[in-house]
Amino acid sequence: MEETTLKMILVEQRTETNEKLNCNGKNNISSSRKIYMDYNATTPLAPEVIETVKEAMYEAWGNPSSSYEAGQRAKKIINEARESLAKMVGGSFQDIIFTSGGTEANNLVIHTAVKNFMKSNKQSTVATKESHEEKTLGTLPHIIISCIEHDSVRLPVEHLVKEQKAEATFVPVSKVTGRVEVDDVVAAIHPTSCLVSVMLANNETGVVMPISELSQQIKVINHKRKASGLPWILVHTDAAQMIGKGRVDMQDLGVDYLTIVGHKFYAPRIGALYVRGLDMNTPLHPMLFGGGQEWSFRPGTENTPMIAGLGKAAELVNENFELYEAHMRKVRDYLEERLETIFGRQNIHFNCRLEGSKRLCNTCNFSILGSGLQGWLVLSRCRTLLASVGAACHSEKGDQPSAVLLSCGIPYNVAQNAIRLSVGRDTSKEDVDLIVEDLKQAVAELQ
Amino acid sequence: MEETTLKMILVEQRTETNEKLNCNGKNNISSSRKIYMDYNATTPLAPEVIETVKEAMYEAWGNPSSSYEAGQRAKKIINEARESLAKMVGGSFQDIIFTSGGTEANNLVIHTAVKNFMKSNKQSTVATKESHEEKTLGTLPHIIISCIEHDSVRLPVEHLVKEQKAEATFVPVSKVTGRVEVDDVVAAIHPTSCLVSVMLANNETGVVMPISELSQQIKVINHKRKASGLPWILVHTDAAQMIGKGRVDMQDLGVDYLTIVGHKFYAPRIGALYVRGLDMNTPLHPMLFGGGQEWSFRPGTENTPMIAGLGKAAELVNENFELYEAHMRKVRDYLEERLETIFGRQNIHFNCRLEGSKRLCNTCNFSILGSGLQGWLVLSRCRTLLASVGAACHSEKGDQPSAVLLSCGIPYNVAQNAIRLSVGRDTSKEDVDLIVEDLKQAVAELQ
Repeated sequence: MEETTLKMILVEQRTETNEKLNCNGKNNISSSRKIYMDYNATTPLAPEVIETVKEAMYEAWGNPSSSYEAGQRAKKIINEARESLAKMVGGSFQDIIFTSGGTEANNLVIHTAVKNFMKSNKQSTVATKESHEEKTLGTLPHIIISCIEHDSVRLPVEHLVKEQKAEATFVPVSKVTGRVEVDDVVAAIHPTSCLVSVMLANNETGVVMPISELSQQIKVINHKRKASGLPWILVHTDAAQMIGKGRVDMQDLGVDYLTIVGHKFYAPRIGALYVRGLDMNTPLHPMLFGGGQEWSFRPGTENTPMIAGLGKAAELVNENFELYEAHMRKVRDYLEERLETIFGRQNIHFNCRLEGSKRLCNTCNFSILGSGLQGWLVLSRCRTLLASVGAACHSEKGDQPSAVLLSCGIPYNVAQNAIRLSVGRDTSKEDVDLIVEDLKQAVAELQ
Repeated sequence: MEETTLKMILVEQRTETNEKLNCNGKNNISSSRKIYMDYNATTPLAPEVIETVKEAMYEAWGNPSSSYEAGQRAKKIINEARESLAKMVGGSFQDIIFTSGGTEANNLVIHTAVKNFMKSNKQSTVATKESHEEKTLGTLPHIIISCIEHDSVRLPVEHLVKEQKAEATFVPVSKVTGRVEVDDVVAAIHPTSCLVSVMLANNETGVVMPISELSQQIKVINHKRKASGLPWILVHTDAAQMIGKGRVDMQDLGVDYLTIVGHKFYAPRIGALYVRGLDMNTPLHPMLFGGGQEWSFRPGTENTPMIAGLGKAAELVNENFELYEAHMRKVRDYLEERLETIFGRQNIHFNCRLEGSKRLCNTCNFSILGSGLQGWLVLSRCRTLLASVGAACHSEKGDQPSAVLLSCGIPYNVAQNAIRLSVGRDTSKEDVDLIVEDLKQAVAELQ
């Protein structure tokens, strides 16, 4: 979902080898070995996932709507994947809707919230028409998102605002914690608010947002609003960066919608939306109409092999996520330790270490201090490291530093030098040693 | 896109073997050999396509937006696939937008037409405000589709009508030709008409629609309308059933939009929309907003392996479509010959042989005449044949015959007995012999 920026300048400019990364992100040509540390941008597919996709391509190509064996086998595989996904987020089988990816899932939530508001507002207007109160609520739904959401949340909201179909508040993050603070979200609530969407963890800083607390507060507020006849506020979190890196539990999180993005956890490029109590407690208004698949919430003949692969990746997370998390944390911590040792504590700033905040186990965002050491420039001098300075959301800003980092209170000249490294399940301490050495050499060339 | 009906009753009810169909639709356990003749519902993946998907999963997992080699390799693969698809439909590289499938492509066209109308109408209202003519055009866009369109065209239109966001005319097919006749479409045009959507070939009868003639006529009408300040009518065709079975050429067809559905031509379950002169001559209004992929017309990190597979399937069509077509036609004609011989010409009615109409090379829709020989009943007695009585669009009607056949003038009691067989690239005359024998036995049991 998230792409890396144009500023990710490449070793290829210097080496011109046509090397290939294999499926665990490593390169087997030692002379031009590349080390991938951009797992927050995308992950390779796990070997078990590739096997599952392959098997389904050969053996489950039947139309899942066909009632003969070939179709029913496909249907069964899809429903097994649904079970695995539901288990992965501590939820129920029937609450998972497969989508083409995170972008569609996020757009679907925003579309739903607006539709739901219009529907409720219409009913409310009808109910109160006699007393001429129909203007009380305003006519436009109000959406609250954080100012560091992914483009697939921010842009559909901005589009609705532009089209005068919604109003929106973009809540800034705390300059101390790098988090979207619950009080700030609550302060942004209007009578017409219908949706709060805050990501579970930020892709650049790795900061984990206080989603459970947010949901709890909004639950209380919703009960009060109900008594006043105000619309229910739905809560959504995009869990793209958290899945496979930390526990994701619908019960703890308390949100109504949760976005699942395959290619961030070694699964194929499809996704899913978890809807708590789909159509019973939580509305879902389809954006597409057609053949009735996914209980008509998301029609279109199912992409069985990719869904099977997504299910397998979820199984892997269910079985191993503690191991994955511990490994990535160990390697990331080692990386930070090595960076401090090599560059000296006084010459490096960890943009991801924000007071009182938890962060993703795999993410390290740092700046090597000094002039002429802009992140993109340092990466352009690296021979081994493949990484990025941030997310594509900010690439249109050219050489300007990441807006996410600035909003977290990182000074401009420090943010300019930022490099985001995100490690994966197979990243080793040896990889870390190599890329730290690579960075050292690159910085030396620039100084 | 199209699914087979609930009425597809299965041999499995009788055999209980857990046989598997392999990727060319054949079964290698001879004792329970199944023969798949439902290629209009879905096709297996071509072996070359599976290889391509596999290779891309291993080697092109990088984020196509990443500028380092791993990402750029993925980007290159995607653009090569785009080239192959464009070539397949006689169009230009830059006019192909990848989608999650045919359902999304069809919905996107309808969404675009409505948005475009509203935009043009708004401009027109502003322009003519002084002369108080703003009500001339009416406020709702008018959409014309045939009454035999797939659910992914019909249902979004019906939804818009229900929401009072559009008006629609559903043009019947001729009871003689089984075609949507150009004159009938032209007669349905209103001043507010903004879109005509007619499928290229019907999935049940195989009848090919006169899309080139339709486009030509509408072109003439559009030029006249332009002079009167009336909105431009966009023309769309869903080519799901035609690709890989007959020539599809954007120049000949003259349409503005053409839907491509992978899983109908041995490709994966994704699709594409061809937009002639995308954004220059023909508008496209995105339904999703996000990371900017597909020139922001369809954002979301690209599903590289599936797109690669779609491209490979297009290449196969480009290289072999005449061979495929000739083979399928030969086998289908042999099938019809055998059916006539076995059941006697007077006892069989070919619902797909409609006066003056061309039809798909692979489709045979027939009824074995006589009471107690309903299509679903006959199929339920077959031991080898896997086929269907029609498309899912009609499954909600229970045991009633296909509305498509009735609309083509097939009498009720004949339509009740209909069976649709659709052959594939690997269907052999031997397969035909076996399933005709199978059908004969099934009918004998029922008589």
